[in-house]
Amino acid sequence: MDYRIRNFNAGPAALPLPVLAEIQAHLLNFKGTGMSILEISHRSKPFDEVIEDAVARVKTLLNVGDDYHVLFLQGGASTQFAMVPMNLLSPGDRADYVNTGTWSTKAIQEAKLLKKDIAVVATSEDRNFCYIPADIRPTPGALYMHVTSNNTIKGTQYAAFPETGGIPLVADMSSDMFSRPIDAKRFGLIYAGAQKNLGPAGVTLVVIREDFLKRSPKDLPTMLRYTTHADKNSMYNTPPCFAIYVMDLVLAWIMEHVGGLAEMERRNREKGDLLYGYMDASGGFYKPTADVGSRSLMNVTFRLPSEDLEKKFVEEATKAGLGGLKGHRSVGGCRASLYNAVDLAAVTELVDFMKEFAKKNG
Amino acid sequence: MDYRIRNFNAGPAALPLPVLAEIQAHLLNFKGTGMSILEISHRSKPFDEVIEDAVARVKTLLNVGDDYHVLFLQGGASTQFAMVPMNLLSPGDRADYVNTGTWSTKAIQEAKLLKKDIAVVATSEDRNFCYIPADIRPTPGALYMHVTSNNTIKGTQYAAFPETGGIPLVADMSSDMFSRPIDAKRFGLIYAGAQKNLGPAGVTLVVIREDFLKRSPKDLPTMLRYTTHADKNSMYNTPPCFAIYVMDLVLAWIMEHVGGLAEMERRNREKGDLLYGYMDASGGFYKPTADVGSRSLMNVTFRLPSEDLEKKFVEEATKAGLGGLKGHRSVGGCRASLYNAVDLAAVTELVDFMKEFAKKNG
Repeated sequence: MDYRIRNFNAGPAALPLPVLAEIQAHLLNFKGTGMSILEISHRSKPFDEVIEDAVARVKTLLNVGDDYHVLFLQGGASTQFAMVPMNLLSPGDRADYVNTGTWSTKAIQEAKLLKKDIAVVATSEDRNFCYIPADIRPTPGALYMHVTSNNTIKGTQYAAFPETGGIPLVADMSSDMFSRPIDAKRFGLIYAGAQKNLGPAGVTLVVIREDFLKRSPKDLPTMLRYTTHADKNSMYNTPPCFAIYVMDLVLAWIMEHVGGLAEMERRNREKGDLLYGYMDASGGFYKPTADVGSRSLMNVTFRLPSEDLEKKFVEEATKAGLGGLKGHRSVGGCRASLYNAVDLAAVTELVDFMKEFAKKNG
Repeated sequence: MDYRIRNFNAGPAALPLPVLAEIQAHLLNFKGTGMSILEISHRSKPFDEVIEDAVARVKTLLNVGDDYHVLFLQGGASTQFAMVPMNLLSPGDRADYVNTGTWSTKAIQEAKLLKKDIAVVATSEDRNFCYIPADIRPTPGALYMHVTSNNTIKGTQYAAFPETGGIPLVADMSSDMFSRPIDAKRFGLIYAGAQKNLGPAGVTLVVIREDFLKRSPKDLPTMLRYTTHADKNSMYNTPPCFAIYVMDLVLAWIMEHVGGLAEMERRNREKGDLLYGYMDASGGFYKPTADVGSRSLMNVTFRLPSEDLEKKFVEEATKAGLGGLKGHRSVGGCRASLYNAVDLAAVTELVDFMKEFAKKNG
């Protein structure tokens, strides 16, 4: 058996072990082709089956039909920060953005860099983004409202998406995609870098509604137009084949091993309840940083009584086989990322360690 | 042993077997971290070592110093078709392009779409791109001359790069990067999608000279500026970690297993000589499509006496364990791609098969 730690990394992050085992077992001979998945042509039948399967699984999990297009792009969510306004906002169009932290801020900056007409309709900057704003009001006539569904650095997550009075949502779901069921029909566009809940770094899932797709201007650089990729089923040029293959395996794991998004959410809630529940009862030794109603089930951010103790906590946890617990370098503290592939046993082990650590250092 | 074919795919293409074996062996536990390379943080020390090693190897193989920056980007050469003119050509600047086939044509179209001032100073379109133009003359004052060093679809390759009188070359080397030594100091920028000679699809190598890097305008979308990536050592956002890891293994294989670029070129020449030599002596049954002085050592394109025979050839070769011999869908015919990872034994086997096939069907 290979040595494996409990991996609480914020991303790239834990993948389901059965997925890793599957990749490993067939790495030299993919489906009897006599080639590795790393060596097969993206124009071949075996790869076509992979990408078609991944598209179908995304649509099934989102419960959407042919009025939505599923794309596998490159460049991460950071590239989407530009592609979204470039493709959707023509002169005269305007859009709303909600600022809930680092990634929202970057999305807003990028739209402004492109000189697009956007309004920041709500922000939680006043308290260092430790909550999701309530009572978000759209600008009449806005084409879309952009939200970051989960904030990896600040540890917050929308419990419910804003009521927009029919204005479509555009969401960066990089860090909680397919962690729970959503009403996809409220969204004109969803994007997600794969490296948290969906697969390895190197592919970005984009789901775009037909009417939004049609907005792509023809004078954009070819690779930056959503239509380029939609017209060619994500194979205008060579796609990141391996990353798409792994994503397909992860989607199959969610559907067939876990049993779907409702069960996925139940498991994620169970894990979050265990960890937040313990911290709330820890007598203040461990303090979650996010407001109760805004707590993320994906990234649990918390502080200890001192920075020295935080450092010691991370070090001793690492030695105990609990990895990735250091907070983002921009905020400090600690963070346990509980993505889909992190199981209850890992969180139980973490809580047991936390209890011991508090006892010794409290 | 896993079943493995002789893989003559044009890309994604064969990878060295020791590289695949290494990936497979350590897939569940990368360097004792207890995590897969697919699960480790791009901000971690183990990954930092991977990317630093890859950068150092690229510089060593190109024999360049700190006046060149090595970047690992996403989006393939197709994204570079836009990024190159967006970053390098400001109002008043102009550049030369040489058109040697499908990919050059796309690079030219993209620069024109961006309304850049470019001149096509040479083209081989008159004979369906079956040769590399001789006597290419730069436009005085051009900032760079763009060439496609190897043309996968038409089966041509520059034997020597154009004399430009000091104007820097910009080259798409997607299909022959590190197949031979080059004088890198003549290049202001080199780019290469990985999926032919360097690794799996999903990462694009960019090598850019300091003075060219400094040209990036600040008002471009963040992810499209070379400076964004150079300033952060390709980690402005999460890079395609796994693809970079595999590229690093491939670079190590070239340097330590093969023994460097001179030996790599000798091997590639030996393979090409064997295959072209046999065809030239085949009495016209197999006809290479490229002019003799322009023949690619990477993609050997050829025709048989009829399309029916070509179809039969590809079918029977596939059955004999020789895969990927169908020509590009846009030109038909046959194509054997002999990238770095395709060894002499594979080409010998192919030639033996071709002899038998010619005997039976000639």
